[in-house]
Amino acid sequence: MSRMAHAEKKGSGAAEGKARREAPEPIYEGDFVLDEPLLLDCGRTLANPTLHYAVYGRLDAARSNAVLVCHALSGSALVGSWWPELFAPEIEERLVDTRRDCIVCVNLLGSCYGSTGPASVNPETGHVYGPEFPLVSIRDNVRAQARLLDSLGIERLRLTIGGSVGGMQALQWAIEFPQRVERSVVIGVAPLGAMGLAMNHVQRMAIVNDPEWNGGKYLTHRQPRRGLSLARQIATLSYKSPELFEERFGRNPNRNGEDPWSLDADGGGLQGGRFDVSGYLDHQGARFPERFDANSYLAILRTMDTWDPTREFCNAEEVYRRIKGAILLIGISSDGLFPARDVQQLAEAMQKAGVRAEYREMITAHGHDAFLAEQTELVRLLHSTE
Amino acid sequence: MSRMAHAEKKGSGAAEGKARREAPEPIYEGDFVLDEPLLLDCGRTLANPTLHYAVYGRLDAARSNAVLVCHALSGSALVGSWWPELFAPEIEERLVDTRRDCIVCVNLLGSCYGSTGPASVNPETGHVYGPEFPLVSIRDNVRAQARLLDSLGIERLRLTIGGSVGGMQALQWAIEFPQRVERSVVIGVAPLGAMGLAMNHVQRMAIVNDPEWNGGKYLTHRQPRRGLSLARQIATLSYKSPELFEERFGRNPNRNGEDPWSLDADGGGLQGGRFDVSGYLDHQGARFPERFDANSYLAILRTMDTWDPTREFCNAEEVYRRIKGAILLIGISSDGLFPARDVQQLAEAMQKAGVRAEYREMITAHGHDAFLAEQTELVRLLHSTE
Repeated sequence: MSRMAHAEKKGSGAAEGKARREAPEPIYEGDFVLDEPLLLDCGRTLANPTLHYAVYGRLDAARSNAVLVCHALSGSALVGSWWPELFAPEIEERLVDTRRDCIVCVNLLGSCYGSTGPASVNPETGHVYGPEFPLVSIRDNVRAQARLLDSLGIERLRLTIGGSVGGMQALQWAIEFPQRVERSVVIGVAPLGAMGLAMNHVQRMAIVNDPEWNGGKYLTHRQPRRGLSLARQIATLSYKSPELFEERFGRNPNRNGEDPWSLDADGGGLQGGRFDVSGYLDHQGARFPERFDANSYLAILRTMDTWDPTREFCNAEEVYRRIKGAILLIGISSDGLFPARDVQQLAEAMQKAGVRAEYREMITAHGHDAFLAEQTELVRLLHSTE
Repeated sequence: MSRMAHAEKKGSGAAEGKARREAPEPIYEGDFVLDEPLLLDCGRTLANPTLHYAVYGRLDAARSNAVLVCHALSGSALVGSWWPELFAPEIEERLVDTRRDCIVCVNLLGSCYGSTGPASVNPETGHVYGPEFPLVSIRDNVRAQARLLDSLGIERLRLTIGGSVGGMQALQWAIEFPQRVERSVVIGVAPLGAMGLAMNHVQRMAIVNDPEWNGGKYLTHRQPRRGLSLARQIATLSYKSPELFEERFGRNPNRNGEDPWSLDADGGGLQGGRFDVSGYLDHQGARFPERFDANSYLAILRTMDTWDPTREFCNAEEVYRRIKGAILLIGISSDGLFPARDVQQLAEAMQKAGVRAEYREMITAHGHDAFLAEQTELVRLLHSTE
């Protein structure tokens, strides 16, 4: 029997285990610098922040074919790479079509994929933000994105769409700029519940406990790898489901041949050989610091934690009544981070406020990650009663 | 509004939030030293290990009234302190009765509450075991406990009972020494599934990532507090349930007055004020290293991970057919660590093998911890069709 490593068997999380369609290429990828400071909900300002963005397909003469796709925690502006199946179905009236639409995707503020984040230089001080990077809310992001769209001549969006933190933005767009959004698709998301906040908290602790984090003042090439790896491992538990893990890993020993009933290499018994699920988690954890920054992770965790569009309003109805577009909310049946029931309740609250809100549920064992791991099934559901 | 700390509001996990009954006092608490080496399943031996144990109530002349209570991961031999309600019901035929029974509880090998563990001196070397403490299985524990009972003149047990890792021992007793056990009550446990193994893995990583762990060679007063605290926080997520957290904490800011929408003390936004659930977890985490040892935690995680009584047998039936006593298995409806369905399937597998196995389910939002946090309800269920 060959000793396979997890690296050979497991995909990247997106479209895992499936032959990927060729990723659509953006017609443009670049930076937009806001020409004035961005006043943030937390009271601070970001001086002339940069938004990194990608565009797929061309804006038509009437400027009526713009679509905004929003990415999740560790995503990037290159939606063609991480959500290729969204563009794929060979049907007439597909939701997103590079031949018909002009699709824009903007990297989140705080991220490490091109937009201003903790590793950027603060133009006011000449130094890297580091731990002084402020709390940027989902609403702050949406407002900054609106300025980018202004600059591109995009007044109306025929669609905003996103999953997880991307869904937060897609919905916040419909609330913040109701005149500008025809329709929003919001997948696997609602304001984070107590268990979700708890899952994020222990991830945060994993990073800040790492001495290499150094209060956020680490050199880029010396980031807190162990802490960030552990955070990713914990996150992976919240992205997947017990059913999926049981089916994939069960109580099997690690596929590289380790023996969980053995002693350690030095003869002790505190660690020993790993189970298969541990090998998988270690592999996921080890790869993550190669592509993501610890301070960006902390920044976006807070963006995620603090999102509740109805906060500071007397009641939710007051907020939802603002919405003019149609909203499609998708719950994921096995989602442990944003339970489907929470998404359904969000839909019901909107309906009660008179919003054209529809709820559909993705029945899957993949957990929260299903919007990336089960793209074909998601796209089928999105088009099911189009 | 008063600024309450979590310390004032939250209990110790056991019988949380309830007025505790006065804890029964043991008539004896002491050590038993095995007079010969204990040959372990992993192939190593423990030279003359010590078992710390407590006794409640007196053995009768016929030696027919012995009960063995088994404790969970971070428990101790003092069952009267952590499971007081078990002794409480004022009814005729109660399951456990200090006036009728002689109740014995033995501290697990590997623990830091009196039995031989990583912080003990290895008599063969004169040095502390530390990271060289071997893997001790549930079966090893049960065999060592049997020698202790031999020394006490206890041949038969009218009952073995335990929850979680305690339930593993209670059931292993019925398998290993079928002639010696009349009845076993096994609560909230089955061989750990893939998600449970994963939860334990990230806890292990939290400890070994802490530089203070130092490969397990730390001084007792300089143990890896941060890593152990984080492990306890993660464990707490697996012991409780989303429903319970939602009800207790929701999206409330921490009760000490922190503001999750604020910046950090130094003006940055990577951490900021905590939500209430984070304050609770930090409090749980901070207290744990005061009462538990990191290497003991690692040792017992492996004891827990590696337990599967049917491993190395052709089929489960062959193992369960050994059992002569009656088995009552209790699933906990909201248990995320040992799902009730797994416990029910264990019961069904036993019934199929001809065991007098019964399954009951504790309906509760408390999660795995319910056997400690909801003792009154548990005891009611245990007596419900007596």
